[in-house]
Amino acid sequence: MAKFQAEIDVMPKKEILDPQGKAVTGSMKNLGLAEIQNVRIGKHITLEIDADSAEAAHAKVDEACKNLLANLIMESYSFKLVQA
Amino acid sequence: MAKFQAEIDVMPKKEILDPQGKAVTGSMKNLGLAEIQNVRIGKHITLEIDADSAEAAHAKVDEACKNLLANLIMESYSFKLVQA
Repeated sequence: MAKFQAEIDVMPKKEILDPQGKAVTGSMKNLGLAEIQNVRIGKHITLEIDADSAEAAHAKVDEACKNLLANLIMESYSFKLVQA
Repeated sequence: MAKFQAEIDVMPKKEILDPQGKAVTGSMKNLGLAEIQNVRIGKHITLEIDADSAEAAHAKVDEACKNLLANLIMESYSFKLVQA
């Protein structure tokens, strides 16, 4: 049994409006950072997982993303695994 | 003037309780994913920035993180920049 660390990004899909990101893009102008455009805000999730192999850990993290962490209608996810 | 893309992670500091992550860790058990532990949830932010150099872009993104994107009392941030 090995311990793996997963770093997961869950982002709103490109074709979906991101009102939080839009608001932050607007605020950049007020902060004197008008060079910053197209802010999009999602979630960054870290977790630890015990598994026999990297493949098994990958499958478990994928299942967690699909069933709990991401709403696949509005969000897409990606992750990377490293052995701890 | 070049365009850069920044990928920013903003996470609750280690010494700070993360109630959202705690709740998700608990839910993993109910989903049959008890191997998953120590879930922590932060923000993943992508943005575009126009700058003369990678150094200038780095300084601007750092300023945006400090002044708007992260609450440095409770959160830490890291980012990477790629030329678009």
